Amino acid sequence: MKIGFVGLGNMGLPMARHLLGAGHELAVYNRTQAKAEALGAKGARVARTPGEAARGAEVVFTMLADDHAVEEVIFGEQGLLAGLGAGGIHVSSSTISVALSERLAEAHARAGQGYVSAPVFGRPEAAEAKQLWVLVAGAKAEVERCRPLLEALGRGLSVLGEQAPAANVVKLSGNFLIASMIEALGEAFALTRKAGIEPKAFLELFQAVFARSPIFERYAALIAGGQYQPPGFAMRLGLKDMGLVLEAAGDAQVPMPLASLLRDNYLGGVARGLGELDWAGLGALAAERAGLDKPTP
Amino acid sequence: MKIGFVGLGNMGLPMARHLLGAGHELAVYNRTQAKAEALGAKGARVARTPGEAARGAEVVFTMLADDHAVEEVIFGEQGLLAGLGAGGIHVSSSTISVALSERLAEAHARAGQGYVSAPVFGRPEAAEAKQLWVLVAGAKAEVERCRPLLEALGRGLSVLGEQAPAANVVKLSGNFLIASMIEALGEAFALTRKAGIEPKAFLELFQAVFARSPIFERYAALIAGGQYQPPGFAMRLGLKDMGLVLEAAGDAQVPMPLASLLRDNYLGGVARGLGELDWAGLGALAAERAGLDKPTP
Amino acid sequence: MKIGFVGLGNMGLPMARHLLGAGHELAVYNRTQAKAEALGAKGARVARTPGEAARGAEVVFTMLADDHAVEEVIFGEQGLLAGLGAGGIHVSSSTISVALSERLAEAHARAGQGYVSAPVFGRPEAAEAKQLWVLVAGAKAEVERCRPLLEALGRGLSVLGEQAPAANVVKLSGNFLIASMIEALGEAFALTRKAGIEPKAFLELFQAVFARSPIFERYAALIAGGQYQPPGFAMRLGLKDMGLVLEAAGDAQVPMPLASLLRDNYLGGVARGLGELDWAGLGALAAERAGLDKPTP
Amino acid sequence: MKIGFVGLGNMGLPMARHLLGAGHELAVYNRTQAKAEALGAKGARVARTPGEAARGAEVVFTMLADDHAVEEVIFGEQGLLAGLGAGGIHVSSSTISVALSERLAEAHARAGQGYVSAPVFGRPEAAEAKQLWVLVAGAKAEVERCRPLLEALGRGLSVLGEQAPAANVVKLSGNFLIASMIEALGEAFALTRKAGIEPKAFLELFQAVFARSPIFERYAALIAGGQYQPPGFAMRLGLKDMGLVLEAAGDAQVPMPLASLLRDNYLGGVARGLGELDWAGLGALAAERAGLDKPTP
Repeated sequence: MKIGFVGLGNMGLPMARHLLGAGHELAVYNRTQAKAEALGAKGARVARTPGEAARGAEVVFTMLADDHAVEEVIFGEQGLLAGLGAGGIHVSSSTISVALSERLAEAHARAGQGYVSAPVFGRPEAAEAKQLWVLVAGAKAEVERCRPLLEALGRGLSVLGEQAPAANVVKLSGNFLIASMIEALGEAFALTRKAGIEPKAFLELFQAVFARSPIFERYAALIAGGQYQPPGFAMRLGLKDMGLVLEAAGDAQVPMPLASLLRDNYLGGVARGLGELDWAGLGALAAERAGLDKPTP
Repeated sequence: MKIGFVGLGNMGLPMARHLLGAGHELAVYNRTQAKAEALGAKGARVARTPGEAARGAEVVFTMLADDHAVEEVIFGEQGLLAGLGAGGIHVSSSTISVALSERLAEAHARAGQGYVSAPVFGRPEAAEAKQLWVLVAGAKAEVERCRPLLEALGRGLSVLGEQAPAANVVKLSGNFLIASMIEALGEAFALTRKAGIEPKAFLELFQAVFARSPIFERYAALIAGGQYQPPGFAMRLGLKDMGLVLEAAGDAQVPMPLASLLRDNYLGGVARGLGELDWAGLGALAAERAGLDKPTP
Repeated sequence: MKIGFVGLGNMGLPMARHLLGAGHELAVYNRTQAKAEALGAKGARVARTPGEAARGAEVVFTMLADDHAVEEVIFGEQGLLAGLGAGGIHVSSSTISVALSERLAEAHARAGQGYVSAPVFGRPEAAEAKQLWVLVAGAKAEVERCRPLLEALGRGLSVLGEQAPAANVVKLSGNFLIASMIEALGEAFALTRKAGIEPKAFLELFQAVFARSPIFERYAALIAGGQYQPPGFAMRLGLKDMGLVLEAAGDAQVPMPLASLLRDNYLGGVARGLGELDWAGLGALAAERAGLDKPTP
Repeated sequence: MKIGFVGLGNMGLPMARHLLGAGHELAVYNRTQAKAEALGAKGARVARTPGEAARGAEVVFTMLADDHAVEEVIFGEQGLLAGLGAGGIHVSSSTISVALSERLAEAHARAGQGYVSAPVFGRPEAAEAKQLWVLVAGAKAEVERCRPLLEALGRGLSVLGEQAPAANVVKLSGNFLIASMIEALGEAFALTRKAGIEPKAFLELFQAVFARSPIFERYAALIAGGQYQPPGFAMRLGLKDMGLVLEAAGDAQVPMPLASLLRDNYLGGVARGLGELDWAGLGALAAERAGLDKPTP
């Protein structure tokens, strides 16, 4: 298939590489062009604008940092919306706001283009190892056309209906669950440490009794070890995502006091210069509040 | 071994039965004597007071509802403290406050008796199936003497040092982690439902991506199904335990805002007559706050 | 002076009337024209667009419901920005977001126009009685030019520097203080009622010991009487304002957990159909959580 | 009248002095006897035990630091309960838990003694200046007998019914309102400071628009000035009182999320060694969370 790919960061680059590896014809665009060249050397066409990457493509992916980056790439001059032909499909894999996802759905519909929302669970290592879990929502026919591409990216796929923004709500809800668990673990480690329990002992118990879940165990281990650097997913991104959760919750009229708590804590971390710690750093903040060690930026 | 067992509720009865089955000589006491008779028929001696169950025992277990019940059984006239001989060991498996555990440690020491704190993770079904996970803390020699008994009750054992109350902190921290996850799931289901996602679809995703943990999956399923009755563990017990968490946290000077949130929500549920719902009922409260269905007592 | 006035709601109408009464030449615009006619009968010129109200004016006021209404009036075709001549000053009295206030400052500066932010404290009765308290921020010369107009509207004026959006931060902070007190009073009345104290008795005490402040006493009386209708300021507006507070706080990196709590509570009220209760209705929610009476929409 | 007075701290000493000055016959007890001697020089009898201070008294006051101190003084050997004759009345002015107040009511009733709960609002300066506001609850006849004494202590009296512990609930609710306002002010000052508003300017506005209440203005001034030392009422006492509020609220089944927030913040302050700051120090914590200045112990 003829595919465009916009956004070659830690997540986008391995995703694009898998699509290339699956035999598709790929045009890639990245703001910092050097990253695009790497794929150029493997046979991708390097585009100089998002629009150029979209031109003639059946499907064009975007995998970008935030709402702002997506808006620029889509709506800017020489943007994807202008470049993609009628009938082309935009597959949006970034973690963006529900409101922007709704705007994209409308804009592409007006342009006679398709729009599929396909955010993913998994960190860069999972992207490398084709172990992402892909959420997907959008018009049935369009989802089906993209299905083989999405299956090439990960270990599983959840189809979430025909309203594209629903996939974004679910992605944000997932990040909310993870952050909740981080906060809970942070508070629990602070309490047990003050009772003289070695973090390692509580971690082993958690693994034995609770978890058997790679996600939760990973964060429990980070907190147990006080290892917040380098960040796998930075605190400032946690702040961004909890902001998106609360925005979606506000629009849907769903009070989420736990999400508010998480957002306030991430905001406090960022305000104090800790935005580049891993988002498991809620554990560091909980320890500090308890009079244990101070977090180091 | 000569063993006493006080408290034959949903948890205590199967635990006592396993000890009997392992060939030990058992004396049992329960406030409602009928339950004790059942074990009497299988060879246990039925005592008429806690003290009588303790008399002559090398080890005496207690498995009771709360601090109040434990205080009565231990310190009352004809209580366990008076009945247990010097050198006897009290194994306390109830979920009690850290402060009471400290008091027990002192009282038994003064009486020349041993005290081992051994709370467990697992519901009545797990107790039946010898699938409990046992936490244990106390003087090394005493823990070692009790180890075969504790191993007869479950699938695993975590030894948490020589300070008995530490095991209570860890047990409460575990319940705190579970309640945190329940609240997070409750809020996430409310948000995704309002976005038009079927609870079943979000549940499947949760199972696929996050959990692979029987504890979390169980609660996610209860919330997805809106099934809060009959309670496996009632909301009023959740309230009790979060109260104990906050008490321990206060004594240790550990601010736990998430635990405060959980306690307030359980308290609100109980205040409104929902105390007998399963503690997963935080999900019902989150749905109600969002203008979805009202909880039914 | 030649003045325009856009927005003749409960607040705007009496404000415009006072300006007219002070002898100024007034052009007025309101979306629902009937309200403008009332002032027309008293000598104001009735404009058919915001731009027309601004044309030729030295100063043009806006007093509108929210960000959205302000954006339409300012940036729309035949809007205020287009109609106001170079050198004209826009005085914005609406409670709007800090971000929009910043955008207005930039837009007017680009158009060679002045921008003064002048939100007010006080309900419609205070506006009628010239008892508003006016906050004002903006370039010194422009503030001075508007000062006599602003003094004609109320009983006092606080000048808050040359950065116009600062006045919006302060206005939002004031509403946040009021909502905080409402929540605190709501919880305190729920607690004392459950201890058998008559709300009237606690109210008298509050008046005697704490308050001597018309704002706080007013809300204490509403909660003591359970009088949430008709709304002086509706819960859905409380939700809006707490949203603006948190937005400003997020941009400034200030964690405000109390504001989060207030927003969640207002959101829950609105989600359940109580958006038209007075924002003192936090007291009704606190009572309900305590198992006292249910709020009635 | 023959009066005993136990507890001559910052509050108790001036209260006792006023009673002496009103012409009553006074016996005083204080753990640190030096303070009692000062009153001895003015004509009071210095007792060596609480029981001795109570012996032969018609009314005996207690004004002590916390539950623990009251329990010792009342129930200890040579305690007040043993020393006070039948028909004597204990007037308890300390800020204690509702649960202890209930216990006291029962114990005195069993001993044929009266019990009047009479906590006060006001700091030491107010006690000196006879400006306290006294809450009182208890059996009508007993309250009437004590009324002249209570009126000699302050500027006003609120009679709160015949259930003595109700006065304690109201006292705790009052402290909860103050702490709520402190937190709200703390967050508002942090937000406005980040917007470039001088604390002094926001303070003036608060005084002009909101307050006209000495209590709130005092705390606003402390926060505006960052003046948290010496403490008028220390953070660790704020923690104690918020703990008592939540305990009472738990027993009465009243969820108070704002009280939980306050308690967590005080607990965090104390855990980090700031327990001796004034309880207005919530303002210091809010500023720190926002990345402004760090609190200094």
